[in-house]
Amino acid sequence: MKIALAQLNYHIGNFDSNISKIVSSIEKAKNDGADIVLFAELAISGYPPRDFLEFDDFIEQCSLAIEEIAKSCIGIAAVVGGPVKNESGIGKRLYNAAWFLTDGKVQNTIHKTLLPTYDIFDEYRYFEPNSSFELIEYKGEKIALTICEDLWNINDDNPMYQVNPMDELIKLNPDFILNIAASPFHYEQSKTRQAILQKNAKIYGLPVYYVNHVGAQTELLFDGGSLVVNDKGEIVKELNYFDEDFAVIDNDGVAVLPKVELNSQSKISLIHDALVMGVRNYFQKLGFKKAILGLSGGIDSAVTLVIAAEALGAENVHSLLLPSQYSSGHSIKDAEDLAKNLGSSYDIVPIKGLFDKFDESLSPFFKDMPFNIAEENIQARTRGVLLMAFSNKFGYILLNTSNKSEAAVGYGTLYGDMNGGLSVLGDVYKVDVFELARYMNKDKEVIPWNTINKPPSAELRPDQKDSDSLPDYEILDTILYQYIERRQGPKEIIAMGYDEDTVLRILKMVNLSEHKRYQTPPILRISSKAFGMGRRMPIVAKYLS
Amino acid sequence: MKIALAQLNYHIGNFDSNISKIVSSIEKAKNDGADIVLFAELAISGYPPRDFLEFDDFIEQCSLAIEEIAKSCIGIAAVVGGPVKNESGIGKRLYNAAWFLTDGKVQNTIHKTLLPTYDIFDEYRYFEPNSSFELIEYKGEKIALTICEDLWNINDDNPMYQVNPMDELIKLNPDFILNIAASPFHYEQSKTRQAILQKNAKIYGLPVYYVNHVGAQTELLFDGGSLVVNDKGEIVKELNYFDEDFAVIDNDGVAVLPKVELNSQSKISLIHDALVMGVRNYFQKLGFKKAILGLSGGIDSAVTLVIAAEALGAENVHSLLLPSQYSSGHSIKDAEDLAKNLGSSYDIVPIKGLFDKFDESLSPFFKDMPFNIAEENIQARTRGVLLMAFSNKFGYILLNTSNKSEAAVGYGTLYGDMNGGLSVLGDVYKVDVFELARYMNKDKEVIPWNTINKPPSAELRPDQKDSDSLPDYEILDTILYQYIERRQGPKEIIAMGYDEDTVLRILKMVNLSEHKRYQTPPILRISSKAFGMGRRMPIVAKYLS
Repeated sequence: MKIALAQLNYHIGNFDSNISKIVSSIEKAKNDGADIVLFAELAISGYPPRDFLEFDDFIEQCSLAIEEIAKSCIGIAAVVGGPVKNESGIGKRLYNAAWFLTDGKVQNTIHKTLLPTYDIFDEYRYFEPNSSFELIEYKGEKIALTICEDLWNINDDNPMYQVNPMDELIKLNPDFILNIAASPFHYEQSKTRQAILQKNAKIYGLPVYYVNHVGAQTELLFDGGSLVVNDKGEIVKELNYFDEDFAVIDNDGVAVLPKVELNSQSKISLIHDALVMGVRNYFQKLGFKKAILGLSGGIDSAVTLVIAAEALGAENVHSLLLPSQYSSGHSIKDAEDLAKNLGSSYDIVPIKGLFDKFDESLSPFFKDMPFNIAEENIQARTRGVLLMAFSNKFGYILLNTSNKSEAAVGYGTLYGDMNGGLSVLGDVYKVDVFELARYMNKDKEVIPWNTINKPPSAELRPDQKDSDSLPDYEILDTILYQYIERRQGPKEIIAMGYDEDTVLRILKMVNLSEHKRYQTPPILRISSKAFGMGRRMPIVAKYLS
Repeated sequence: MKIALAQLNYHIGNFDSNISKIVSSIEKAKNDGADIVLFAELAISGYPPRDFLEFDDFIEQCSLAIEEIAKSCIGIAAVVGGPVKNESGIGKRLYNAAWFLTDGKVQNTIHKTLLPTYDIFDEYRYFEPNSSFELIEYKGEKIALTICEDLWNINDDNPMYQVNPMDELIKLNPDFILNIAASPFHYEQSKTRQAILQKNAKIYGLPVYYVNHVGAQTELLFDGGSLVVNDKGEIVKELNYFDEDFAVIDNDGVAVLPKVELNSQSKISLIHDALVMGVRNYFQKLGFKKAILGLSGGIDSAVTLVIAAEALGAENVHSLLLPSQYSSGHSIKDAEDLAKNLGSSYDIVPIKGLFDKFDESLSPFFKDMPFNIAEENIQARTRGVLLMAFSNKFGYILLNTSNKSEAAVGYGTLYGDMNGGLSVLGDVYKVDVFELARYMNKDKEVIPWNTINKPPSAELRPDQKDSDSLPDYEILDTILYQYIERRQGPKEIIAMGYDEDTVLRILKMVNLSEHKRYQTPPILRISSKAFGMGRRMPIVAKYLS
């Protein structure tokens, strides 16, 4: 039996586009002699459809799309992920289902058992877990059809769920395992995913055919990397990362296929490619072409610009250089050099006159109170007004250039440099922003080395440096990583050898900045714990703060 | 057996404060001769603690707090909500528990069975559902101890869960039902809550003692209204709304207690009190005293100011009047009249000079392109910069004044009038903002009648009116209510008799504005479906858009 894997980039709610992509792949699979073609989890709606699932109209559109697709399934079967109504009268109103389509109609639907409800996942919000198990029978083969998390409860140390679907399905003697998934990228995820699928293949002694989403859904990045694992747990096929792909594998010969060499991209290379895809898909799917950003001469905006230029074309990214009286001489030069290196357009709009005008308007009220955070923020916000004015006038989408370290400790101005439709680097710690810059310069100097080598500064007051008020980024970022990604508390982090005052001060800064992050644009997620939908913190609280 | 109900306002993560309140109430209950005193669900941490629950340190702080409280339970028992570790090695790592404390220690813990995971609730994100059922035995009585949602699966039409805890517990012959809850307010919720508890009392033929949270946790408002229902389903005690309260009821005499007259506040009166509590608690719990807002002469900022003045004291709210060349003459007068009526301070900062300076800075780039949304937004954003400058300089917290109707259709300027630490009216439709204004004027003219009677306008271009581009608010708000609160789709709403083009245009505006609402401050929730944590929509999508 020949099994085709169709790894596609879906668009949430865009049924016409999703149907058209799926039907094309069915045709292709037919031409390639496939018996079954697999599409991803919730392919029909795109993943995650979130609260669209609460609308009957949306569910009906999904069903109509499935009917439309089924018509193409003549002489072939297709497995397509989509929601299906729970008609039992008890429990949540939907199942997260795999539709098995053949002979022009729906032959069966399989429901997902294990519903991830952690981090960015909200599946139990919408779906009733499955509790009955059956195989699909097709062309004399018995198929264990599973959906994403259904294969993931095999961590013996601490299983998250009470049941393991494959332990039930194996009793029915399946011939192979299919898994349709929507498993979002983070820079350590592909190794975990491969290990889980290999472990399943070995435990159950069956080949596993795995199809993942690819493409960006706002902040969620799907890396693809669909897999075929033989019954010895060897990976015999790996599909593209960060791009659509298609393959056909003959299950009758899968046991003798050679192991393949797996994608070996470095962490920084993966992050780079993920961010480029994230920016590109954000614009494509919203129908936008052009981006704008504020180019300060610093490293964050430099790296953001390079990513945007790769994603959209250098000619589609416009930069504003917005110097104030506190900008150092090299800032303008570094920014201009970068834009010129890329062949990307820019304008210079000095903000001193505007700042002085705000100063003048406010002086009757502020009188002789000293320059402080208020004036620093006026500069950042004046820049924000100018960038948004260009955005509104010319139809550019503003890209946010903040990094994860500063987002974590609240070093950013709300309604100023925290503005933007999309945060490109908001999940990338400062030390990794530097690594990204060096990676971008590996063949030639794209980002001026001076931008990379000079001490980071917000340049909002004379001779300001980030290190005036923050520990070195190597230390800061490690403490943040332990607190954010690894959910370690103060005691655990101090026990790792970090200075107690520093740790407590940093954690307090993180917790006191929740109100700022609440108003941050969506952040492209490249780590296992990004700010945004996957990290839900109280604002009005008093804990470590 | 005498049962005390302690309805308290907790502070998330503030263990010192929560312990102190709970211990005081235990002493009070002892003095009043109570045998048991009840506190709310997750009282120890405050509700909802959200991802703090993922930190071992936080869970340990909860346990230490419980131990501390247990020491006070000599000669009395206390029921206190808090998380407890799941030691089974399978499933989520915590239970949502009711701790039963007596003789200075923990006698038992009961785990919550039904974990709400919809709207603003995320309980299955953190907690394993209970699946074993037992009663608490205390002083010869057998007690069915339940936690909030555990009593809510009695909707025969479509139960959301597979089990009903009381159907299990009733088999063990309990003498009465205790329920500790964290049931957030919306303006129709108290009637539903009462009906559910009455239905439980009648079905199981047992009295029900119900203790709810009171107070605001950022956007979530808890109205209290704790109840005692006798075994005939009659409500014999109702505690305060929007305030802490305490009562002791003798279970031996509960059957003969007279029915009480229930709180009969109107919808608008409930919304008013909820918003005042929301603003007050936001400031109290964050340790802030003073608010600022932009007072336009329009109705939204007027109603926001009145609420803030009630919540914080008129002397703690400062207004900025920020007229542009498009502000009508009456706007300044209406705004000044209101501030004077309240005895609240204000400053006038005209923005024309700043607008002209932006115009001058941008003219080399915008050249002779016509005035459009870019210039409209510059005005709103200039106001935003000025308000935030006052906020930063003087330590005011900026209140957002947007209403739900404009938040829904995207009629607001990001980084301009959408700024603020807290949105006061973001869950109140425009028609209800008018009702609130009339309610505030019921005894005397607080808000100038001209503010209430004039046609709404953003005053960002000459002679602009909201009705230029939106249907009348009566129609707009009904369509929005059907789409947002009732999750009706286009077909259903059109079938109610609304114009097809209007409906499709409005729903499209709502869906295209998700990116704006993503960056909105937290919104005080007064309806069954508010923007924010309880409504989770994709941004990059194409559905009805």
